[in-house]
Amino acid sequence: MERNIKPRVFTKNRNTNPNNNRGPKKPVNGMRRKGMKLDRRPRSNPRPQRKKFEKANEIPAIGNNIRIIPLGGVEEVGKNMTAIEIGDDIIIVDGGFQFKDETTPGIDYIIPNTKYLEERKDKIRAMFITHGHLDHIGGIPYFIEKIGNPKIYSREFGAIMIKKRHEEFPHLPPLDIVTLDGDETTIIGESIKVESFSISHTIPDAMGLIIHTHFGKIVFVEDVRVDNIKGIPTDEEINQYKRFKDEDVLLLTLDSTSVEKPGWSLSESVVVENFEKIIRDVDSRLIIGTFASQVERILAIIEISDRYGKKVVIEGRSMVSNVEIIKYLKLIKTDNIISINDMENYAPDKIVMLVTGSQGEEFAALMRMANKSHKHIQLRKTDTILLSSSIIPSNHNAVIRLKDKLYRSEAKIITYLDSDVHASGHGNREELKWIHEQINYKFFIPLHGNHFMLRQHGELSKSLGTPEDNVIIPDNGSIIEISDNGNKIEVLPVKAPNEIVTVDGFSVSDIQDVVLRDRSLLSEAGIFVIVASINTRTGKLKKSPDIISRGFVYLRESQDLLQESRNLIKRVIERNIDGKGQIDFEMLKKKVTDELMKFLFQRTAKQPLVIPVILGV
Amino acid sequence: MERNIKPRVFTKNRNTNPNNNRGPKKPVNGMRRKGMKLDRRPRSNPRPQRKKFEKANEIPAIGNNIRIIPLGGVEEVGKNMTAIEIGDDIIIVDGGFQFKDETTPGIDYIIPNTKYLEERKDKIRAMFITHGHLDHIGGIPYFIEKIGNPKIYSREFGAIMIKKRHEEFPHLPPLDIVTLDGDETTIIGESIKVESFSISHTIPDAMGLIIHTHFGKIVFVEDVRVDNIKGIPTDEEINQYKRFKDEDVLLLTLDSTSVEKPGWSLSESVVVENFEKIIRDVDSRLIIGTFASQVERILAIIEISDRYGKKVVIEGRSMVSNVEIIKYLKLIKTDNIISINDMENYAPDKIVMLVTGSQGEEFAALMRMANKSHKHIQLRKTDTILLSSSIIPSNHNAVIRLKDKLYRSEAKIITYLDSDVHASGHGNREELKWIHEQINYKFFIPLHGNHFMLRQHGELSKSLGTPEDNVIIPDNGSIIEISDNGNKIEVLPVKAPNEIVTVDGFSVSDIQDVVLRDRSLLSEAGIFVIVASINTRTGKLKKSPDIISRGFVYLRESQDLLQESRNLIKRVIERNIDGKGQIDFEMLKKKVTDELMKFLFQRTAKQPLVIPVILGV
Repeated sequence: MERNIKPRVFTKNRNTNPNNNRGPKKPVNGMRRKGMKLDRRPRSNPRPQRKKFEKANEIPAIGNNIRIIPLGGVEEVGKNMTAIEIGDDIIIVDGGFQFKDETTPGIDYIIPNTKYLEERKDKIRAMFITHGHLDHIGGIPYFIEKIGNPKIYSREFGAIMIKKRHEEFPHLPPLDIVTLDGDETTIIGESIKVESFSISHTIPDAMGLIIHTHFGKIVFVEDVRVDNIKGIPTDEEINQYKRFKDEDVLLLTLDSTSVEKPGWSLSESVVVENFEKIIRDVDSRLIIGTFASQVERILAIIEISDRYGKKVVIEGRSMVSNVEIIKYLKLIKTDNIISINDMENYAPDKIVMLVTGSQGEEFAALMRMANKSHKHIQLRKTDTILLSSSIIPSNHNAVIRLKDKLYRSEAKIITYLDSDVHASGHGNREELKWIHEQINYKFFIPLHGNHFMLRQHGELSKSLGTPEDNVIIPDNGSIIEISDNGNKIEVLPVKAPNEIVTVDGFSVSDIQDVVLRDRSLLSEAGIFVIVASINTRTGKLKKSPDIISRGFVYLRESQDLLQESRNLIKRVIERNIDGKGQIDFEMLKKKVTDELMKFLFQRTAKQPLVIPVILGV
Repeated sequence: MERNIKPRVFTKNRNTNPNNNRGPKKPVNGMRRKGMKLDRRPRSNPRPQRKKFEKANEIPAIGNNIRIIPLGGVEEVGKNMTAIEIGDDIIIVDGGFQFKDETTPGIDYIIPNTKYLEERKDKIRAMFITHGHLDHIGGIPYFIEKIGNPKIYSREFGAIMIKKRHEEFPHLPPLDIVTLDGDETTIIGESIKVESFSISHTIPDAMGLIIHTHFGKIVFVEDVRVDNIKGIPTDEEINQYKRFKDEDVLLLTLDSTSVEKPGWSLSESVVVENFEKIIRDVDSRLIIGTFASQVERILAIIEISDRYGKKVVIEGRSMVSNVEIIKYLKLIKTDNIISINDMENYAPDKIVMLVTGSQGEEFAALMRMANKSHKHIQLRKTDTILLSSSIIPSNHNAVIRLKDKLYRSEAKIITYLDSDVHASGHGNREELKWIHEQINYKFFIPLHGNHFMLRQHGELSKSLGTPEDNVIIPDNGSIIEISDNGNKIEVLPVKAPNEIVTVDGFSVSDIQDVVLRDRSLLSEAGIFVIVASINTRTGKLKKSPDIISRGFVYLRESQDLLQESRNLIKRVIERNIDGKGQIDFEMLKKKVTDELMKFLFQRTAKQPLVIPVILGV
């Protein structure tokens, strides 16, 4: 193994501009550094430059045209949201969030930028939710009020997921949710008809939309897979899509997440068969870690366990929550679910546990068991632990740590590498191709994925005969216009606002640039605050300066460095005070910061944030 | 997609102990918080508790026995190093480093803990380096002096890699390197014979060791793969291992990195065949991104390019460096390598570029091209870009960003998903099994991998007939003793020092706990420093307190919060000064910190590090 080593370079501008470090002579207001136009992220972040939204009037009137505006989910896997503007009406599809990554330290989520919608909230007629996963519903509490609390249409499982999540935001007004049963056609605004149809994903009640417009039908599909036996779609799938036979479709949108993966994905039915064998044959406790969002699989596990006379224990917050919905909707018989406290009343081979934490999440059930900090469950050498999930790449190190700990328990471990115990909810390339072939569309917009995935998906569409000009690869905020009676599709030169919006504690904001950049810097080399009091009459330091440092060096072993720093500060201050007239505190702070940064880098090869506090007393 | 959401809990002890925040009345020395026994890492880190090394005399005298002490590489993939102690002699094998992860923010590397060796440096007779990759040589500059600058034995390519790297540390004394040609037997100490033998990896001159001891032979193999055609080892491999036929081996150690992967790995010869087709057929510039450490592949690319009359441009620091070694050793003809400045003298279809950065490294050649910041190379729509590497999981997001940018250039992209253009240097399970079957060993110690990989590798050995007691799964610092004339192997109850040692700028230390913990906290919610001056006579604040904050909230939009914080600080201070006698600054700081933390959390749901500076004037 080998990687490139970054040469160590002293970059002056990496540090703070000392002008921001207000001493007592100035108010703190201006603490944000002036005159510096900073990128929202550290330089390492190669996200494309977000274009500034200029003025609303730069966007031409829509007239008779149709606009598709992806607000999230087309430069990432996450925060899916798309606006469809048809004359005077706007329909929104989905409103998810995305988890942080290493470029957004400390934040909770990234959500779609809804400014375009906020400025047009009187036009919003409805929001449709394709399914109940957080990357499709998680953003709702943060923007729903700002866009005027439109009616939310969802099938039943998704509707309950949305309501449950909304209960965590008691300060918000209740949502106006309409539950679709799948057969009805909804009339939106003046004349837009919206039908829904069932599609396969990993959660009940996932749907696609057919939006009837004056130019033709828009078939809007987000997350989807195609159930198949070794590449042959099941009859159910064929039935679901046969409605499009001989139909002309204006526009298709489709999930791009797994377009890079060749062939057909493993069928969930194979996974369920393997579960059946394992549940039937296991002669000890069976602990299954999977995503709580894999509701279809959870249903199967509960049913199979019942068939073999086994009791199921549900553990972990999101797992309990989703099983509550299953019970509430009476989707299956759940008599064999028992409380964790009753577990010891049954023989070990009669116990199946369904637990959260297969991604190594710090506080989830499985990690607590592995850490021996779980209140009720101690792992035993005789247990069988089944990790029924692939690894989300950003969780890789956490999963490694989990596996290391689980192996120390000496339990038997089964993963997707040993046996087919996980299938994805996103169709591979051949599945997507099959869907393309079922729908006779004119225009294609790939959604749900990073730019490179969308590009590959666009190529797939072209390889099936779609003319180059009929395929649009959007960015977040692209305004895609269908005009000329449905004969032309193009991206307008102006974009909807697309600055990244972060949820950071209670703050929901598109202006966290400086904050995130500072967090990155702080995590590299910490902070170095110096406090010096100057006798304004003598121009001398009242005493040796004080230093407060965190996350920089181990201070107990750095006494020489601190003493030399104090001496340096003293010298720089006293050299720069002429003893006559006003003391220029700003100049002093700048000089001290510059000299100290240079000194600290030379001595430690680290560049902490240096903050000088210089007081005149 | 859905994951668990961590409930937001206000944990008081997450914050700083205000006692550390020395005001002017106390020296800075005690800045490390007293009385708190902190874990070296934030709580989230589930690494096993490292046991404290008590006293050297707890380790019983070695007597006639043999000890194997893995000092790194058996709880991680990285920082490989093992000591072999035979009576009065110590031999060291490898001395690598490991890259940081999310639990060690800001540091450069993690290196093996060499304290055990430092305390026994008079016994060290030799260090052997199995090959020139950084996870086997990268630690040398940081510990070689401390262990007494022992002789380093390596084959030629590795020897030059070590020397080149050492040039970056001009303050260190020169290394004492002995270049092995592979045929000789080296006598170490009184009577230990060490032979080396060739093995397959991704870099020339990789070797395994045969250490002849009074108890028998130790066959020491680190990184290794087995060249094969669809699961049939090549004749060369069969030749390399036939020396072990009918030989009794005391102990085998072996790479565990890819034991989890079933079957045989893709052969490098298949990769090279695919390269040949691509290089032959490409009718534009071909840009190949790969690891500079894949030296065997680089050799093949240069040769194939020459065969088809193509010129090769080398770009990126580590790539240039490794190609210099290739030239110096005259491993192949390199006449077709041209300078980047001469590139425009050739037709595009005569140009092959070999560049660094396939892992999305920020400053590497490929990322600079993708960012349009490369001085010489602008990507063109007609280019073909070949990413000849798998994705190291911790680089996943960086590679995604790279791919997104490369796709925006509209060049043609080929990855290992499209075509077999990358093979690993670590053998899959069946390759490892084949090696086991070639060597008739008594004891087995798996090395080079996380604990769960070692466990799986141990199971593999047992499945081949090794008795349970003859397989040892070590931790870093485990002292494994072979005694009873080579008939018994066991792990001693006492461990060698195994605290994690970090390289952080110029600091090499095993006591960075607090520093790393603070960096993690700072990256979550930043810092909030308050500066208040109290008139010691009146007990009143001289003026409204000042606030300096970074990485917490966007200050320009938080003026109310700041004003309320100032008011709160003022109230708390004035309420806690009785106006008589000495002011208890420590008590004041504690009160201010506690109240402010509570207030800021209630208002923002964030917990910055709060540092109070309270001055008496």
